[in-house]
Amino acid sequence: MSKQERATRTRNALILSAAELFDQHGYVRTSLDEISTRAGVSRGALHFHFANKAALAHAVEQAAADTLQTHATQLPLPHTNALQHLMNLTHQMIHLLHHDTIVRAGFRLNCDTTPQTPHDLRRQWHTCVHQLVTRATREHALPIHINPDALTTTIVATTTGLEILSRTHPQWLTPTTLTHIWQLLLPATAH
Amino acid sequence: MSKQERATRTRNALILSAAELFDQHGYVRTSLDEISTRAGVSRGALHFHFANKAALAHAVEQAAADTLQTHATQLPLPHTNALQHLMNLTHQMIHLLHHDTIVRAGFRLNCDTTPQTPHDLRRQWHTCVHQLVTRATREHALPIHINPDALTTTIVATTTGLEILSRTHPQWLTPTTLTHIWQLLLPATAH
Repeated sequence: MSKQERATRTRNALILSAAELFDQHGYVRTSLDEISTRAGVSRGALHFHFANKAALAHAVEQAAADTLQTHATQLPLPHTNALQHLMNLTHQMIHLLHHDTIVRAGFRLNCDTTPQTPHDLRRQWHTCVHQLVTRATREHALPIHINPDALTTTIVATTTGLEILSRTHPQWLTPTTLTHIWQLLLPATAH
Repeated sequence: MSKQERATRTRNALILSAAELFDQHGYVRTSLDEISTRAGVSRGALHFHFANKAALAHAVEQAAADTLQTHATQLPLPHTNALQHLMNLTHQMIHLLHHDTIVRAGFRLNCDTTPQTPHDLRRQWHTCVHQLVTRATREHALPIHINPDALTTTIVATTTGLEILSRTHPQWLTPTTLTHIWQLLLPATAH
């Protein structure tokens, strides 16, 4: 393993450990010592990569934003319209929030009282939903009675609520819950 | 003013000041000194009423729970079914979250990393929505295609999401936003 590879590996281990601790205890209650210990890295090595806790939080948010962006920009499956693509994407989002600690921690940092952050994950998700609803409207994939802005608002508010509620009760993030919500919003389309 | 009245007034001033500071800066970043200064009360008077910051947080949550309970148990307007009553109640909830600092701080404490709390406001709201949806089902007020559990889940998740999103962008808590959501959920009923 080259020096460069080792450095990348250490940096990633620090980001993952920070995400795990921010996710469990919140930003304020997590210390740099806990992060370096969990990552199996010396305090000096931590400071080589990150100036302070805020820098680590930003790295977690950046990693979460990258994961979200990768999912948001993937090509739709063949023979799916923008509405089906949006449904699939909300299911992926629920899956990420359930299983990807970095994404979950990224959103939690957005809610905690953290220092000003350059990554607004909630805005990124809102933009992504808005673009797909706009495309679905252009493709005439939305039922005629659906107000596109109302659909965007409801999807963003609902997924945000599921994320918050799942912090104390993880069962809010099951695929079944989301399927029920889609069936309610679009009875003729969701399945 | 009697001694008893003065004590009640001081206690209420401390709860309101604590709520304002928890709402603006979060639990962890608010100090007891800031709370007593804002309430115009000595540190000794604060300690006469509250042993520590956690006790103040619990008092804020209790006050928020009482307000929520008052709204949840009020009688429906004449000639309204359980579904219309639920719609009215969600509008009241949005109004409270926008204008009642104690309710807003209570929910924020529920999300922050606070000490274990005896008041789960989110659960209280969930129970309230569940009961009204159950009553609406019994009264045959729900359209036949609506799954009652899905409706409960969607209402709770959506209102929770609106509350969280409004922390950075208050316009998420407007009556129009909620009306749009209801029109999407129940096109034939909402107005």
